Amino acid sequence: MRLSRYFLPVLKENPSEAQIVSHRLMLRAGMIKQSSAGIYSWLPLGFKVLRKIENIVHEEQARAGHHAMLMPTIQSADLWRESGRYDAYGEEMLRIKDRGGRDMLFTPTAEELITDIFRAHVSSYKDLPLTMYQIQWKFRDEIRPRFGVMRGREFLMKDGYNFDLTKEDALHAYNRHLVSYLRTYERMGLRAIPMRADSGPIGGDDTHEFLVLADTGESEVFYDSAVTDLTFGDREIDYDSVEQCAAIMEEFTSKYARTDETHDEALFGEVPEERRRTARGIEVGQIFYFGTKYSEAMGATVQGPDGKNVPVHMGSHGIGVSRLLGAIIEASHDDNGIIWPEGVTPFHAGIVNLKQGDAEADAACEALYASLTALGLEPLYDDRNERAGGKFATMDLIGLPWRITVGPRGLKNGVVELTSRRTGESEEMPPEQAVERIRDIYAGHKHGQHVEMMANRSFHTYI
Amino acid sequence: MRLSRYFLPVLKENPSEAQIVSHRLMLRAGMIKQSSAGIYSWLPLGFKVLRKIENIVHEEQARAGHHAMLMPTIQSADLWRESGRYDAYGEEMLRIKDRGGRDMLFTPTAEELITDIFRAHVSSYKDLPLTMYQIQWKFRDEIRPRFGVMRGREFLMKDGYNFDLTKEDALHAYNRHLVSYLRTYERMGLRAIPMRADSGPIGGDDTHEFLVLADTGESEVFYDSAVTDLTFGDREIDYDSVEQCAAIMEEFTSKYARTDETHDEALFGEVPEERRRTARGIEVGQIFYFGTKYSEAMGATVQGPDGKNVPVHMGSHGIGVSRLLGAIIEASHDDNGIIWPEGVTPFHAGIVNLKQGDAEADAACEALYASLTALGLEPLYDDRNERAGGKFATMDLIGLPWRITVGPRGLKNGVVELTSRRTGESEEMPPEQAVERIRDIYAGHKHGQHVEMMANRSFHTYI
Repeated sequence: MRLSRYFLPVLKENPSEAQIVSHRLMLRAGMIKQSSAGIYSWLPLGFKVLRKIENIVHEEQARAGHHAMLMPTIQSADLWRESGRYDAYGEEMLRIKDRGGRDMLFTPTAEELITDIFRAHVSSYKDLPLTMYQIQWKFRDEIRPRFGVMRGREFLMKDGYNFDLTKEDALHAYNRHLVSYLRTYERMGLRAIPMRADSGPIGGDDTHEFLVLADTGESEVFYDSAVTDLTFGDREIDYDSVEQCAAIMEEFTSKYARTDETHDEALFGEVPEERRRTARGIEVGQIFYFGTKYSEAMGATVQGPDGKNVPVHMGSHGIGVSRLLGAIIEASHDDNGIIWPEGVTPFHAGIVNLKQGDAEADAACEALYASLTALGLEPLYDDRNERAGGKFATMDLIGLPWRITVGPRGLKNGVVELTSRRTGESEEMPPEQAVERIRDIYAGHKHGQHVEMMANRSFHTYI
Repeated sequence: MRLSRYFLPVLKENPSEAQIVSHRLMLRAGMIKQSSAGIYSWLPLGFKVLRKIENIVHEEQARAGHHAMLMPTIQSADLWRESGRYDAYGEEMLRIKDRGGRDMLFTPTAEELITDIFRAHVSSYKDLPLTMYQIQWKFRDEIRPRFGVMRGREFLMKDGYNFDLTKEDALHAYNRHLVSYLRTYERMGLRAIPMRADSGPIGGDDTHEFLVLADTGESEVFYDSAVTDLTFGDREIDYDSVEQCAAIMEEFTSKYARTDETHDEALFGEVPEERRRTARGIEVGQIFYFGTKYSEAMGATVQGPDGKNVPVHMGSHGIGVSRLLGAIIEASHDDNGIIWPEGVTPFHAGIVNLKQGDAEADAACEALYASLTALGLEPLYDDRNERAGGKFATMDLIGLPWRITVGPRGLKNGVVELTSRRTGESEEMPPEQAVERIRDIYAGHKHGQHVEMMANRSFHTYI
């Protein structure tokens, strides 16, 4: 993309309405614009990151054997009356009357609707296990929306639902989701810690929240510092293996890590004192096992191997897709702006032309642009007729992890400058070498994560 | 995908509520399920096709230089009061009160919101031309939703908006959209004819609808049969070239082709009698130029080269993304089911194992599955323990364009059978050759359309 043709409305001033850094930086970087309280438009740069996050979620869900589908945003109240949640849900549910006077709602979560789909189509244990998920816009009518996309009213969520014959099978699905979420967050450059949590209106006994440590987190968390050393890394996991998934669950949840809702001072006291930590965390996902709560209420049964009909065991599993942008920025920024992890950066590298209009500099930038594009990478070329300082400030603000700076002086010596946004370190090298370095960084990032990216497959649609 | 693990709830019986073939086949093929009147869930197979269509739209919009973004589904009524459309829009607008008692609505179209974004951020002609678009769910509270996804209440639409300094520039944007839409529909295997239409509540003088001819179409259309011979094909177009885009506009719209809303008997009479046609058509898109209607009402001005502030010239341009599934099926099916065009098929090929459990047949199917997958193609392997007839019926119903049939008898002679869903013709060949043929079909399809698919680029997100 050439910046002269892009829509990137960066703000010089700090917007007064933004209380936390991610909200401030998303507004300043021209990623979002508020349209009503807690409701945002995603401008091109913000939408690009949102799609990258969505794609990582889709790829990791596919890897775990889960099926992508999509449920509508507007639902009838009838199903919610069946489960008993219509009256129980409270004022956060946006209730609507359609022109026929029917009670409708903007779905805040979809246990009822997916259970309705299941009971209409599945009647035998032979069709289990089954996990379906969607990435769809939700609405919760927060009384005090704040912190930008972190606590908005309209937000994008991945919500997945497993259907299993037995509690053991459903607990495997629970563990499988935990494994899959660990990979998902790590690919986004996040360390998200699973913590025992409270189930709230979803119901059920077993639930873990995934929290990213950050000063601006809404939850107080208590943990054994040893949990922050755990990484999922490159492991190859067979998602069908009950043992492998259970082992990962054990590894990542056996050390103390709880939110204030479930915190237990006595248990926490058993953690060696030097490893006891209190901090704040941003919730970026949650997994639940709630057994037959919905299947019993709604009659979602299957015939078991013994011929008897039994209600299926279910769980639901969510990732806060739009809120992840805020969480990533809270975890990765400096005074000059955002620092995108390679896995989610909107453009792979920036190209800054120090002297727009200089024939040699222009030609070198165009050649870099063409080479990176030919490799399947997306560069952002600042081809505007602006001062270098302004171009650097924009690149730092929007946070591309790598920048190539091209100027007549360097070109006389046959070099351009490659700069890491994270470390600020620069290195001079011939343009071809800069291209190779960037290619290797993204290939290495990809393979380092053992991510067999579907985007590499010629005809794939990510789902 | 292995069918034994997929969620594909095909129906044997014709659902009584479906009046038209696309609705019937989408229900029978397990692509959608109605949740309320005119509101559908997209089951895995349906969602896969929806995403393929979305991706084609994204790719062609990127090619035309348009920027993807996303606006919320829920908007405040205030902006619509500014444009004067809040009261004018009528009962099709789903009106909502939030918990604070504020008037909100589920957006049926987004001229107001995009104009608000524009006026907040753009003030100089130097930032023009600019076209932004989204693919987002819309809601229109139809009094009589029918025909499945063809006339639903909640539907997925691509809506794009151009902002230009002058009327001439905006008309180039109009022509550019026409060119881009022609490519978009052809990649989906559709012949969509641009027809002069009526502007309705969007406003403006210049508007064309794109119609797919089908008996079940809601519009009566009148045209010179010569328009059905026009194809866009492989042409390379410079979307910045005013001349090239105008020439295509001229070529595709100079022959008589109108909907009943704008039909002119006298003009139609000038078409040679043997070329006069009356038919029915399904509307799959519409482009508008409406000048300064919204920019004047909402104060969206830019400073021109002469230093004076002028309201920008705008247009809006829509593609009915979810309705396209219905239109494609109406245009491409037979008595046995859907026939997907290669560009949008949910799986590239089906593999039917005639004797599940036979060691040789199983191994041959697994090898085919692995080879196709390694090529970046997605096969659907029917690995269920079912009779051949049932497997064929399912494959025909869901409409994969190519099927490989594997059985012990053929394998004895070293061959499998490759069958075209469209022609029904089968050919025996060694398994490796079947893989090569399928690879070439999709590569040829791709290159035949001169589609430099972004999916081919390693790190791309389609936007």
